[in-house]
Amino acid sequence: MNSAQLFEQIKKKRSFLCIGLDTDIQKLPKHLLDTSDPVFAFNKEIIDSTHDLAVAYKPNLAFYESLGAEGLISLDKTVKYIREKYPELFIIADAKRGDIGNTSNLYARAFFDHFDFDAVTVAPYMGEDSVKPFMTYLDKWVIILALTSNKGAFDFQFLEDQKTGDKLYESVLKTSQTWGTTNNIMYVVGATKAENLKEIREIVPEHFLLVPGVGAQGGSLQEVAQYGMNEQCGLLVNSSRAIIYASDGEDFAKEARVQAEIVQVEMEELLLEAELL
Amino acid sequence: MNSAQLFEQIKKKRSFLCIGLDTDIQKLPKHLLDTSDPVFAFNKEIIDSTHDLAVAYKPNLAFYESLGAEGLISLDKTVKYIREKYPELFIIADAKRGDIGNTSNLYARAFFDHFDFDAVTVAPYMGEDSVKPFMTYLDKWVIILALTSNKGAFDFQFLEDQKTGDKLYESVLKTSQTWGTTNNIMYVVGATKAENLKEIREIVPEHFLLVPGVGAQGGSLQEVAQYGMNEQCGLLVNSSRAIIYASDGEDFAKEARVQAEIVQVEMEELLLEAELL
Repeated sequence: MNSAQLFEQIKKKRSFLCIGLDTDIQKLPKHLLDTSDPVFAFNKEIIDSTHDLAVAYKPNLAFYESLGAEGLISLDKTVKYIREKYPELFIIADAKRGDIGNTSNLYARAFFDHFDFDAVTVAPYMGEDSVKPFMTYLDKWVIILALTSNKGAFDFQFLEDQKTGDKLYESVLKTSQTWGTTNNIMYVVGATKAENLKEIREIVPEHFLLVPGVGAQGGSLQEVAQYGMNEQCGLLVNSSRAIIYASDGEDFAKEARVQAEIVQVEMEELLLEAELL
Repeated sequence: MNSAQLFEQIKKKRSFLCIGLDTDIQKLPKHLLDTSDPVFAFNKEIIDSTHDLAVAYKPNLAFYESLGAEGLISLDKTVKYIREKYPELFIIADAKRGDIGNTSNLYARAFFDHFDFDAVTVAPYMGEDSVKPFMTYLDKWVIILALTSNKGAFDFQFLEDQKTGDKLYESVLKTSQTWGTTNNIMYVVGATKAENLKEIREIVPEHFLLVPGVGAQGGSLQEVAQYGMNEQCGLLVNSSRAIIYASDGEDFAKEARVQAEIVQVEMEELLLEAELL
């Protein structure tokens, strides 16, 4: 899927919602625990209940790896289920990988060959050769961490370079955008740092941004759209816990839909305001 | 295992070698491909053949994840095999993880609860709350990327902070060492950047360093020891490909031992020179 096709989906769904599948076995509704694969059972119901409100799903690898091989089986079933039933959806492996080229090659093989993800999140610390292997796959994307939504973002991402005055996350944006195109690179920018989105848009006006931090982490969708939206929308805003854990009862999928709908309606208004619909 | 116990192992083995289990299904000796679990069969023979020459093994997660659930089963068997047969060995998950606290918690659960690793490598880009969850486990370690061995290290790790003049990797060392102790934090410093080890030792005189890049990547063990060794040795020097792929025939484990022995003998000399034996 390229950026134009992604924008088509956004217009069709009237939504730029990405739903994070941070599926924690310890938080699942009790009635699912007796099924043969509770994690997949949960994901399947969430997806069936919300697929028309979202353009993307983002399984968070940590949650699956915490269950070892069994977790990866649930992940595999989830990705295949989406591919087969809802082929229009964009699927992101939230993995925050990045290693020397030789190793990143294997991570790319994992996420794009073994699993059929559309995109994988990557940490930029190790530089170009840690990111490029993910770009050798046609129609696949790398999503590079720029400015993250957590408190620890202030530890290093705001350090200012002596030569250019750029903050580290600005250096990451400026340098890494030369490694690929607006059709194979996106950036992670946390919604909790919405005030920085304006200057970020000056550096990367055309790239899609994956924006976590709306919902449980407290970021404002309104501000994200105000400073971050471009002519192709250019935003995938993620919500995980606020949607998937809206209820821990048998009605969890229905309540997830209620929460997703609230976000979708707000997104539709923002798209209309921006005259993108 | 704490740092004193690790030093005891180094003295006993007369070695500070870590063998990287970058086990690539596409590079395995052909005769193993007919076995029920070629990756584990390969690891088992390598470990049996070299365990007395090394103090640590370092499975590289990418190689296992590239095979999906099946790869994690091979990994699980490898970790359990080492634990049961050679309990004195230190086992590192080379995973380069790091995410918001809530997610890093789950990665810690994956590597320390589900798998019984001693340590996991972590990227520092997302700061304190992405690293700390790994430190809540007794006798477990986090190994933070400081200065990596690859070419891409020059993209961001050498950017100099306007306020302090510190390079990014120096800021990482200075800031992150306040998050834990010399008994739960190590740092990755690439052997290909041995000339930087002297100043790194001024910042973190007591921490253990995990040093990749000797062998296939071309770093010098002599230089690493010269600038990096401290009173507890303070070094785990990793070699992966040069040892495990010494031969692709039926003699692969024997040839791996030959290569590991060459390194161990050199390490023994360096430990003697430093009067640590």
